[in-house]
Amino acid sequence: MTAGPVIPSAAEDRLLRELCDWALDLARAQGGRQFTAAVMRGDQEVVRARNDVAETCDASRHAEIAAMAQAGRATGSADLSGYTLLSSCQPCEMCLAAMRWAGITRLIFAARQEALGEGFSQFGRLTIADLHAASGGAFEYLGGLHEARVLAMYRMGKA
Amino acid sequence: MTAGPVIPSAAEDRLLRELCDWALDLARAQGGRQFTAAVMRGDQEVVRARNDVAETCDASRHAEIAAMAQAGRATGSADLSGYTLLSSCQPCEMCLAAMRWAGITRLIFAARQEALGEGFSQFGRLTIADLHAASGGAFEYLGGLHEARVLAMYRMGKA
Repeated sequence: MTAGPVIPSAAEDRLLRELCDWALDLARAQGGRQFTAAVMRGDQEVVRARNDVAETCDASRHAEIAAMAQAGRATGSADLSGYTLLSSCQPCEMCLAAMRWAGITRLIFAARQEALGEGFSQFGRLTIADLHAASGGAFEYLGGLHEARVLAMYRMGKA
Repeated sequence: MTAGPVIPSAAEDRLLRELCDWALDLARAQGGRQFTAAVMRGDQEVVRARNDVAETCDASRHAEIAAMAQAGRATGSADLSGYTLLSSCQPCEMCLAAMRWAGITRLIFAARQEALGEGFSQFGRLTIADLHAASGGAFEYLGGLHEARVLAMYRMGKA
């Protein structure tokens, strides 16, 4: 696992496992690579969401962006400072930057870029460590938790 | 100006000037820093949009993301390959990555990061040249066109 100082709580661990299993269920039902994310407040789930790029005709609607948008609507503010972002897959640069615009400083995800190969980011020569450094260390993260559950789906593009 | 190989057409030049003037009008009416963007198909305007983070409670709704989402709805596809993105301000990393997820390879903007100072990006230690290189040169861009119109607003945070 790629670890910053983050140690996941039992509730975070459980929800990320559920997100991974949801992504697998979606992949079994619909094929392709499926992505899921959630926003938590401490140990409480606020929202969960899936990638809905195709449904919305909006290339920005990755699972993480959709989850943060839904959390913003639920709480009445775009500012999600103090919340935690969970994702079945390492957030791309778009989602990482959106997370920071939302004020989120705690991130936990399953499949790591280094385990995935190409096609999961747009600035692939930059690692999350590079982006973390370029943000001045503005967030903490843990990648690789429950990675084994989803890796085959992401590598193969099918369940 | 920071130039890749992009030479703006008369229509692109005109629309970017209009976007800058729209941002200034918004700043005069509402205060603060205002951001505007458009999507073009060749010399034809498809949509224009402004930042609506506050209205939507969604930190991802920068002007560029809003414009691309609107263009996707208008065309019925998240794939905007062959389209051009214009913005009153240099797109942040989120918007740049979203542009690439949408398949857009041509970008023209006014105010450049290097002229703006801090607070306009989340990974401020990376320049657009760094991100361009990290994408494998996947897009071409021109920054600084009509920059003088909007620079004072962005530097001051008010018109």
